[in-house]
Amino acid sequence: MEMSSADLVKAALSGSVRAVARLISMAENGHADAEEVLAELFPRTGKAVIIGVSGPLGSGKSTLVDKLAMEYSQKGKKVGVIAVDPSSPFTGGAFLGDRFRMSKAAADSQIFIRSLGARGQVGGLSRAVRDVIRILDAVGNDVVIVETLGTGQDEVDIRTVADTTIIVQAPGLGDYIQTLKAGMMEIGDVYVVNKAESAEADNLFANILTAIEMSNHPEGWIPPVVKTVANRGDGVNDCLEAIEKHLEFLGSGNRHEERRKERVRTELLEMIKEKLMRRANESVLMNGRFDDVVRRIAKREVEPYTYVNEVVALITGSGATKKD
Amino acid sequence: MEMSSADLVKAALSGSVRAVARLISMAENGHADAEEVLAELFPRTGKAVIIGVSGPLGSGKSTLVDKLAMEYSQKGKKVGVIAVDPSSPFTGGAFLGDRFRMSKAAADSQIFIRSLGARGQVGGLSRAVRDVIRILDAVGNDVVIVETLGTGQDEVDIRTVADTTIIVQAPGLGDYIQTLKAGMMEIGDVYVVNKAESAEADNLFANILTAIEMSNHPEGWIPPVVKTVANRGDGVNDCLEAIEKHLEFLGSGNRHEERRKERVRTELLEMIKEKLMRRANESVLMNGRFDDVVRRIAKREVEPYTYVNEVVALITGSGATKKD
Repeated sequence: MEMSSADLVKAALSGSVRAVARLISMAENGHADAEEVLAELFPRTGKAVIIGVSGPLGSGKSTLVDKLAMEYSQKGKKVGVIAVDPSSPFTGGAFLGDRFRMSKAAADSQIFIRSLGARGQVGGLSRAVRDVIRILDAVGNDVVIVETLGTGQDEVDIRTVADTTIIVQAPGLGDYIQTLKAGMMEIGDVYVVNKAESAEADNLFANILTAIEMSNHPEGWIPPVVKTVANRGDGVNDCLEAIEKHLEFLGSGNRHEERRKERVRTELLEMIKEKLMRRANESVLMNGRFDDVVRRIAKREVEPYTYVNEVVALITGSGATKKD
Repeated sequence: MEMSSADLVKAALSGSVRAVARLISMAENGHADAEEVLAELFPRTGKAVIIGVSGPLGSGKSTLVDKLAMEYSQKGKKVGVIAVDPSSPFTGGAFLGDRFRMSKAAADSQIFIRSLGARGQVGGLSRAVRDVIRILDAVGNDVVIVETLGTGQDEVDIRTVADTTIIVQAPGLGDYIQTLKAGMMEIGDVYVVNKAESAEADNLFANILTAIEMSNHPEGWIPPVVKTVANRGDGVNDCLEAIEKHLEFLGSGNRHEERRKERVRTELLEMIKEKLMRRANESVLMNGRFDDVVRRIAKREVEPYTYVNEVVALITGSGATKKD
């Protein structure tokens, strides 16, 4: 029997994990009722702490997420985990699946885990992550952990969704410089050197400390660097403590409010852009001339700007001209 | 004395490197005349071969680009090079500059080199790359080489701009799996194992061959793998030969035409989206209510969907409703 959206919301708010999963699928797939559901849940959001965990493949960030989730759960917190897969533009999915991970947390029924895969649309994955965070927040999770690959060029900008962003590194990955270059040293609130039992860990630790010293900290927060051996559980409590300190820092003054306002600003713009892009795709697909125009432009018989301005004028209902 | 846009176009077409540089700056900065200039140049485009070179930092791809550019130049071809910097969302630029590179090609006055930095807007860098390719194509370059970081998550999707895409790898970078994961094994027309003098190069070579065997090749082109030691010039001619073979393959049947049509399709959609997004930003910025709405949403006094739909309706001139 199909439940109505309203019934699903009720069931989710009463603690049905299955209803939560259904609501998430609705949001992910752009179900017709998704927006109404999210609007209804919205006033209940804003209570969860959102923790972002980013780091390259091989850094052990999934193991760390697993341990953090369990620690929070053992402290009586309700925890949700969102794992974002890097996407291949061609297969539409991850090349190497590593969904086997986070087994211990998954086995703990108190922890809700959702993996979000690749999506075709620009901005699509980012929107899906925001929606899922909202749902998990609204249904009473105290902590939502979002795990991303964190190349600094992710489709999901972890800093715009998380209260506290953790950057996980490990020795021997060889992409330390790459990480620096991609701007990762500027987005972490907490840095973790995982696999700290390795001989080269001290070197990585020192390098990260130096990079932090060299960076600007406009908000006044100097990111701590924590050593962990996540698969043994070592250092996980230090990591939790660093998160707590950062959240306390955000709570002082009006920093948390400023961050949340900044996040709302970003979200509103993204939502508006996403809707406009959907309109653009629809307009072009509905426009019978598109294939003909493509053929003529490819042959250099016409230039593309006139057509572009015509379509934009059609969508915006304005008299856009060539020079507009 | 300021030259008019029409004069700049004339000067650029007559071979003035300075005029070309000025036109590129106009396109990059979104100058009011940029679109008219690009529309005027458009019929002259489509003659240059566009070669994309992607690979991680440390792979030596810049050295390879340098050697390829010089080889083409020595064969009497006019060559343009566009180097795309990875961007940090916070510094608005590359963390570690490596602009010192490509010194030999730059010293050769026949080769036009332009580095495109980070830009704030979504889609902005991608549009800038397309525009600069068009300008370099229109003013008579036979070959345009576009160098990107190639994480598979770049802002610039090299495959949608290049005729032939070269993926450069080197042993010891430790991110081979990462590369696989990001879908790089599916976008190369030619693979290069650079620093092939290193002991581990054979292993990397074998791994790439295996990955190619495991991949689908829907177009019927099996990407060759070339070994190079770019800083000594070794293998550069093998690389050129592989590029030639791929271009011949594209030339047979209607593959090249199909690729170009596909590219036009992508470009038109991007151009339409970019214009719409600019409208969205303007609308929101001009909308005096924005800051107030942000504050109220951050406080959970109102939900964001109603406002989003109002703005979209305003931009599109349509009667979008909450459920739209």
